[in-house]
Amino acid sequence: MKSGERVSVRRVGELGLIRRIRDLAVGAGAPGVLTGIGDDSAALAITPGATLLATTDLLIERVHFRRPAATPRDIGWKAMAVNLSDIAAMGGRPRFALVALAVPPSAEVGDVEELYQGMQEVSRPHGVAIVGGDTSSSPGGWMINVTVLGEHAGSPRLRSAAKPGDAVAVTGVLGRSAAGLAFFDAGRDQARAAGLGPEAEEEITRAHLRPTPRVSEGRWLGSTPGVHAMMDCSDGLATDLGHICRESGVRARVGLDRLPVAEAARAAAAALKADPIEWAAAGGEDYELLLTCDPTAVEELGRGLKDATGTLLTAIGEIEPGGAGVVFIDGRGRPVAMPAGYEHFRG
Amino acid sequence: MKSGERVSVRRVGELGLIRRIRDLAVGAGAPGVLTGIGDDSAALAITPGATLLATTDLLIERVHFRRPAATPRDIGWKAMAVNLSDIAAMGGRPRFALVALAVPPSAEVGDVEELYQGMQEVSRPHGVAIVGGDTSSSPGGWMINVTVLGEHAGSPRLRSAAKPGDAVAVTGVLGRSAAGLAFFDAGRDQARAAGLGPEAEEEITRAHLRPTPRVSEGRWLGSTPGVHAMMDCSDGLATDLGHICRESGVRARVGLDRLPVAEAARAAAAALKADPIEWAAAGGEDYELLLTCDPTAVEELGRGLKDATGTLLTAIGEIEPGGAGVVFIDGRGRPVAMPAGYEHFRG
Repeated sequence: MKSGERVSVRRVGELGLIRRIRDLAVGAGAPGVLTGIGDDSAALAITPGATLLATTDLLIERVHFRRPAATPRDIGWKAMAVNLSDIAAMGGRPRFALVALAVPPSAEVGDVEELYQGMQEVSRPHGVAIVGGDTSSSPGGWMINVTVLGEHAGSPRLRSAAKPGDAVAVTGVLGRSAAGLAFFDAGRDQARAAGLGPEAEEEITRAHLRPTPRVSEGRWLGSTPGVHAMMDCSDGLATDLGHICRESGVRARVGLDRLPVAEAARAAAAALKADPIEWAAAGGEDYELLLTCDPTAVEELGRGLKDATGTLLTAIGEIEPGGAGVVFIDGRGRPVAMPAGYEHFRG
Repeated sequence: MKSGERVSVRRVGELGLIRRIRDLAVGAGAPGVLTGIGDDSAALAITPGATLLATTDLLIERVHFRRPAATPRDIGWKAMAVNLSDIAAMGGRPRFALVALAVPPSAEVGDVEELYQGMQEVSRPHGVAIVGGDTSSSPGGWMINVTVLGEHAGSPRLRSAAKPGDAVAVTGVLGRSAAGLAFFDAGRDQARAAGLGPEAEEEITRAHLRPTPRVSEGRWLGSTPGVHAMMDCSDGLATDLGHICRESGVRARVGLDRLPVAEAARAAAAALKADPIEWAAAGGEDYELLLTCDPTAVEELGRGLKDATGTLLTAIGEIEPGGAGVVFIDGRGRPVAMPAGYEHFRG
């Protein structure tokens, strides 16, 4: 059957669906996969002596994504990407994925296939095989839980490893995902009317729907001396750096004028009369890597990362001793309050 | 805060909830746990040279369980138990669990705590640590996804390893979970009026709500020569043995009069005017281990398993060459049709 054909999951049944998924998720035969989809558990081999890394994330329709703004391919991409990002944040190498999916019986098989294609699109370039999972009917919308297993040959980079005197640095650029969310939420007509160009629109919507996990960057940073604490920016820089501070028992000072705000986010903010600095500092879901490092190493790390992966590293602040917390300062050294990042269960 | 106190998840917020879960799920410090809940990924050590096993299962309210028939503690128990059973079915040793949970903001913190207590109750005796997870709000009912990682020092037992001439055997007794389901579905008053005793009621409802994963049995069988194919009975003997036949390219003959039907299931069937043999052959969710083995080894395996774990092993049929499929025969050798097991998306 061709991808996209309009046949319901109800019609092919659970076994028919699992057969299609098994064909799509060609984990069997991939390196380290002794037994993939089709047995009670996957049987896997990791590199001898490596530390095993494991992370899991649940994405739920109307909480984490909205259809049809997000296509099945987008949903699959993002569900996989956020887990790859968690392994990258430890400095590890992602290896295997397990996927549990629940869809209503009326869901189209072609949509489920596209969801798997979205997952493969972001995972296959990194050699990650889908090796197992679960399928279920859903009484409501779509739900997808992805677990990714990875490995680290040395010491994973933890949130608790920041030291007073460290530089704080971030990969890539910030604010694009928040700009994309604002665009989808209410801003499409306004942004276009205000002259937001198609390239900037494409960049911010893609950043929101199909974020790029910094897998190569994480592996490089995770095996390079001088990198202390690391995590990914999923809940917003303010919230995430707050986690590093709390786990490490330190505080951080971040210069708002030092943040690498994406040009496309600046353009969208101008069109939408929003603050691009706030998007960059508190917006979340950029999936850049946030790290602390030896202050004497930060320039060399930046050059090395650029050479190895093409990705920028920007120093944005410093770690200080004492009480946990993040202080943002403006260009004149004055503290600026930032809204808290997204939190489930509230408002 | 005491367990069971009536405070909503909305009130404590996501971070407050994670803090409570972190206190409950004492994975940090357990053997092999380098980093547990609180970082981007868990960092774990498995036994050098062992094969890694990984399985995941999603349980959804109104699909897999109904409240209040199932309490939060029951839901937690079952979500963990079905994954432990999958590792046992490979003959492996479960080590670590990751838990993704979505609940509505109005959910009570005490209920979430009880759910984790249910998970711990069934996992802790086997030395399994909860090392990570995810929390989210749910727009509908409760959803819980558990991933369990395990290991096997030798060769995991696969569904594809059945050989013509093998004996087919099953641990424990069958039919209790289906009896429990019938009791909850419509039969409570009828069963009690017909004189079903409280002990049988307790046994069948417990089998349905809190099935016992055969972890010790799986580890013993998975390291004992002569055991070929193995899996757990989750979808019903007929469906599950069908999987072994399809994966192994063989067929199976099973004597209905050889099935180890639970006495409590017989009592419930008598009270509910149902067929206990059908519950045992097609009912599902007994989570017993189903295996094929060298026919000359089956008696010795039975004695060994009984000595090691106290659990019965019953030979119920034979593997034959040729076309996939399961044939059930009655006491006179006549084939008997069995209804198919539960399938998602249908009916």
